[in-house]
Amino acid sequence: MTDLKLQLLDRVGKDLEAIEAALNDNLTPYLELVSKTARHILFAGGKRLRPLLMVLCARLCGYQGDRDKKFSTIFEYLHAATLLHDDLVDGAPVRRGKPVAHSLYGNATTVLVGDFLLARALSIAAETGLLAVIDTIAGITENMSQGEIQQLGNKGRTDLTHAEYMQTIENKTAGLIQGACRVGALIAGAPQQQVDALAGYGYHLGIAFQMADDLLDYVADSRRLGKIVGADLREGKLTLPVIHALANADAADRDWMLTVIEKRDFSFREFTDLVAMLERWEGLAHTKTEAARYVGEAKKRLTGFSPSETRQTLQMIADYALVRQV
Amino acid sequence: MTDLKLQLLDRVGKDLEAIEAALNDNLTPYLELVSKTARHILFAGGKRLRPLLMVLCARLCGYQGDRDKKFSTIFEYLHAATLLHDDLVDGAPVRRGKPVAHSLYGNATTVLVGDFLLARALSIAAETGLLAVIDTIAGITENMSQGEIQQLGNKGRTDLTHAEYMQTIENKTAGLIQGACRVGALIAGAPQQQVDALAGYGYHLGIAFQMADDLLDYVADSRRLGKIVGADLREGKLTLPVIHALANADAADRDWMLTVIEKRDFSFREFTDLVAMLERWEGLAHTKTEAARYVGEAKKRLTGFSPSETRQTLQMIADYALVRQV
Repeated sequence: MTDLKLQLLDRVGKDLEAIEAALNDNLTPYLELVSKTARHILFAGGKRLRPLLMVLCARLCGYQGDRDKKFSTIFEYLHAATLLHDDLVDGAPVRRGKPVAHSLYGNATTVLVGDFLLARALSIAAETGLLAVIDTIAGITENMSQGEIQQLGNKGRTDLTHAEYMQTIENKTAGLIQGACRVGALIAGAPQQQVDALAGYGYHLGIAFQMADDLLDYVADSRRLGKIVGADLREGKLTLPVIHALANADAADRDWMLTVIEKRDFSFREFTDLVAMLERWEGLAHTKTEAARYVGEAKKRLTGFSPSETRQTLQMIADYALVRQV
Repeated sequence: MTDLKLQLLDRVGKDLEAIEAALNDNLTPYLELVSKTARHILFAGGKRLRPLLMVLCARLCGYQGDRDKKFSTIFEYLHAATLLHDDLVDGAPVRRGKPVAHSLYGNATTVLVGDFLLARALSIAAETGLLAVIDTIAGITENMSQGEIQQLGNKGRTDLTHAEYMQTIENKTAGLIQGACRVGALIAGAPQQQVDALAGYGYHLGIAFQMADDLLDYVADSRRLGKIVGADLREGKLTLPVIHALANADAADRDWMLTVIEKRDFSFREFTDLVAMLERWEGLAHTKTEAARYVGEAKKRLTGFSPSETRQTLQMIADYALVRQV
């Protein structure tokens, strides 16, 4: 584990425990099959990044109440609902090193439990009694489903542009993280300026996390990542490292890359060669630079807040986006 | 077409046109794939019962605004989202005489477009700006997904009780119709007593509609119904006609029925014999009586409102639940 990760865990350990308890409490009275399937995805070692960000943003804005942990579950339930449906849509075999839910419980249960988690998130959002929170959740949900549909429509397209990639990751990933940060500020009753600043922090952080995630598909080893390296390409999903390398490469290298990409069931050797090509044409370096730029923008949004332990933790989380290895 | 249906269409024709327009308008700016799949299920000849009930209940409570049609789309979108996921879960081949969406557009699109319609419903609910409306929608969504999961868990169970059947149809069907009527009253700013009365009307009407629907699976011909007769049993789904007949029958007939039911891929001849058995042991008659009782209860909830054309239309809709043949 990196030093930064250890330091972070030390700072937020108590919050993470409280979030785990809330995630569990808010599922307990439900049907056994629901709980079992929901728990499979919820308690498979997720980072709880989204609820944690909501809790920290609320704290940064001076939230004093005791309902922040409960409200924070909205974002993990939404995230888990999306993962359940997304894994089914992608046909991915593993997630976080465990078989995906639909291979264990069947497609039917996976669809319905995803729906249930979405509904649970919505019910808890309604409990806040704040229309601005509910609007945010409604907007996120709509954008996420559109992002997923865009991604599905783009599958197998080798001419995906940088702009199309950005639109998808904004809808699919950044919106939820942005929403978690915004809602933290909203439940604290923060002034609009702080709400906007934290929403901006979340947006830029979300983009950086997704870019780093897309990079990991080419540089991590699959044992550590808990999924198969090169999975994105096997699913016909073009991400920034490839989009940039294709745009940058000379005709011969681009043609070679396209052959491998279009093939989808490439060998390990071909994949290794492809990664070397991504390196040569700066697909990997460019993605790192872009992610770092978004992390920088995220941190800038925090400068208007007085220095505090919480502000520092949020800065560290932004830095962590760049160094995490899983 | 029955006389009652013609009379009803005459009364509500203009409302139905306005609802069609609103359903279309509120999908128009979205991605082509979304619209196409959503339209497949939305414009396949549904009755628009749920939005119509919302509009009529709002009018009965004196609603004067012009946003009722837009808000009423919430209930058709929720309904369509459920149908999309439900057909996928059930593996049913046809719906309203057309191939189901997942056979045309694939499972992935069907899952995601269902999610999108759910999100759209939620966004429009948020637009009402009324927390009571949002609470209602959140509750409905949660109950519907639980009802679906219950039904899935009960598949193939031949010992399903009357109480379990009631719980499932309350969650799955009655809750949405109840919610449409409640929201109609809420957007009109009606007093709590009227809100409760119309919610009660919707609940009882919803149960009656579902029972009548379950009956149609045994008495309608499939050309008229637009789905395969006996489909419920083929999917391992026990409904009231069968539950009552099994509970009522002597041992020999019960055993014979169970053999056919457990077999699932029964012949047309076996199915006809089973229907005769349901007749003999009053499964069909009992379901009709129960549905009529719920219709009576629904109509009672309207007696506190002054007589008006709208009240009469709502009474006629309740009666229609018993005579409809599709």
